[in-house]
Amino acid sequence: MPATDLPFTREEYAERMARVRRAMSDANLDALIITDPSNQAWLTGYDGWSFYVHQAVILLPYGEPIWWGRKMDTFGALRTVWMSPHRVVGYDDSYVQSREKHPMDDLAKVLVDFGTGHGRIGVEMDNYYFTARAMHMLHASLPKAMWVDATGAVNRQRAVKSEAEIGFMRKAAAISEKMIDGLLERVEPGVPKNEVVAELYRDAIRGVEGAWGDYPAIVPMLPSGIDATAPHLTWDGRPFKTGEATFFEISGCYRRYHAPFCRTLFLGTPPDDMLRAEGALQEGLEAGIDAARAGNRACDIANALYGALKKAGITKDGRCGYAIGLSYPPDWGERTISLRENDETVLEPGMTFHFMPGLWQENWGLEITEPILIRESGPAETLCNRPRKLFVKP
Amino acid sequence: MPATDLPFTREEYAERMARVRRAMSDANLDALIITDPSNQAWLTGYDGWSFYVHQAVILLPYGEPIWWGRKMDTFGALRTVWMSPHRVVGYDDSYVQSREKHPMDDLAKVLVDFGTGHGRIGVEMDNYYFTARAMHMLHASLPKAMWVDATGAVNRQRAVKSEAEIGFMRKAAAISEKMIDGLLERVEPGVPKNEVVAELYRDAIRGVEGAWGDYPAIVPMLPSGIDATAPHLTWDGRPFKTGEATFFEISGCYRRYHAPFCRTLFLGTPPDDMLRAEGALQEGLEAGIDAARAGNRACDIANALYGALKKAGITKDGRCGYAIGLSYPPDWGERTISLRENDETVLEPGMTFHFMPGLWQENWGLEITEPILIRESGPAETLCNRPRKLFVKP
Repeated sequence: MPATDLPFTREEYAERMARVRRAMSDANLDALIITDPSNQAWLTGYDGWSFYVHQAVILLPYGEPIWWGRKMDTFGALRTVWMSPHRVVGYDDSYVQSREKHPMDDLAKVLVDFGTGHGRIGVEMDNYYFTARAMHMLHASLPKAMWVDATGAVNRQRAVKSEAEIGFMRKAAAISEKMIDGLLERVEPGVPKNEVVAELYRDAIRGVEGAWGDYPAIVPMLPSGIDATAPHLTWDGRPFKTGEATFFEISGCYRRYHAPFCRTLFLGTPPDDMLRAEGALQEGLEAGIDAARAGNRACDIANALYGALKKAGITKDGRCGYAIGLSYPPDWGERTISLRENDETVLEPGMTFHFMPGLWQENWGLEITEPILIRESGPAETLCNRPRKLFVKP
Repeated sequence: MPATDLPFTREEYAERMARVRRAMSDANLDALIITDPSNQAWLTGYDGWSFYVHQAVILLPYGEPIWWGRKMDTFGALRTVWMSPHRVVGYDDSYVQSREKHPMDDLAKVLVDFGTGHGRIGVEMDNYYFTARAMHMLHASLPKAMWVDATGAVNRQRAVKSEAEIGFMRKAAAISEKMIDGLLERVEPGVPKNEVVAELYRDAIRGVEGAWGDYPAIVPMLPSGIDATAPHLTWDGRPFKTGEATFFEISGCYRRYHAPFCRTLFLGTPPDDMLRAEGALQEGLEAGIDAARAGNRACDIANALYGALKKAGITKDGRCGYAIGLSYPPDWGERTISLRENDETVLEPGMTFHFMPGLWQENWGLEITEPILIRESGPAETLCNRPRKLFVKP
């Protein structure tokens, strides 16, 4: 029985499939093997924590996509995908984490069964869920196929969001706001960090009116003081301390859609250099959001930000944001468009980004960020609406 | 400045490194590139949610390991690893999710700098964090090197736990018990699932006396009724219903160590076939735990279980468990030893497993499982202690 609680209409899935098929046709692909779980979900609705074993969605130039994975997970596929049951195929458990057999041997047979063991086959070569060994096994099993790197081929089709997707992201953003509100209220000197994270998770999963909370693709990151010079530390059981800034990098999640959002809280009196950085960041964010217009390029956002920071004597380069939307661990970005100097992607209405100018300095870190939506005209809309500042508890 | 809050002593890290070097020597490896974040943490202490970009630990036959990753993450490495600062090296942000450059080009240079751009180099070919593209780039950059598949080479050294590791797993198990207690108390007909998961997360992260809660490598899975025929569905906002069984597959986590633990709750009066399965499962678990003795083999546990199930007319094959310990998403298993018919690994004291005989039947699912520790003598110790039964709320 096909899924009854699909997040999107069948028409929307059909439109997505058509978009991917155009990309396949442009790249002259006879088949596309999709291993990124975010791409799988976007295309088929599949939703389950089973991506720790090899699985794929196979898209051919005709017919419904084929979901392929571990046999026990075909039952989850039948509960969540829009395709007919005969398009869901599974491999035996003896292939799982075996030193003798590899699941890609089974995939090779499935490809042959569907008439596509040769020709130009696209694979997502730089995806977490397509390992070096997977590629090696496919090469060996199907020597007549020509393997084409299709990393990002599906991801790029996801850049412009539908109205329904934007609706999901607005719900995720409402959860993000609630999460940040709770943090600002609860963090006090002496409170152990994990206790604050416990309440944060509770807020995230309870969600808001009309939106139950799903698990974000990245866990909360909230380093304090000198630890905040590093962007990706999580938490421990030590207490918050007076005299330290903590940044909170979090995202609400609704049906796998994210709205990452960061604010920073200082306990005590912030040092002057941090206050100066706050002012520069506020100016830079405003300039970046103003530059985030349909017709401009991704780099225009970055350059507007970096220009404002430079005026304040702060040099930042590299990325200051990335495309966001539907995602599974380990990343809530779409891994396509980056907000940086050399990304000339033209911005289109419906694109969504995490505009994320993190400042990791020698002795502290400061993150004030916005999830943004490119509009038909005018500057980007911020999906979250909270004061864009360094919060201070004296 | 090296990390000050290492989870283990420097002696323990030295001993781990020596174990891995013996494995390298047995495989005639001149260098080992470790991309599995669990292996990285076990060997160096590195802890951060940065594995969504390419990073590695390089182990040579001499000297401290080298941590290599994104430049901004070197600050997190300096805060968490035991090695000297000059053993932490970073690549420029322009390599991140770029279509023009690949981080493995930088790794190739680093390998040459450390005098090891040739010879036999081990890579974890079937790890999530070593993509087909990563292998391709290394091949192209270092044509004189011979690449050897070293998947599991480090993981296998992790099988036998130290006293300190067992201490961490006992703390994780105490958190698991608390999580299951809370679930059994709070689940009632009409309560939305996400609200129960919100409290579950709160319990997990608050932890227990003396153990703050870390994030588990897999999110809670708790499908109900017909959805429980599939093992890996997560949750949504629908309410629990009378007449349905829900299994709860969860794990507490303490400093990245896990103790996965599952119980099932039926709301109402369970059908006879489920009660018969419960009885068979109880017998099978007891038989399996009794067979889980030092000197026996992994398959002996599986065969003891399957024998008991067979007597009750239940056929199960495939895996009924796996090695557990330190882990990062997307899997809390060690991906080495499987409890199944053909795994003849000899059990040693200090090995830890999730003995996980999930039954996913046509109309329902039942999970009653135990995290277990192999002892010097006698049957395995269960790390969690809660009634081994199908819970029922009439």
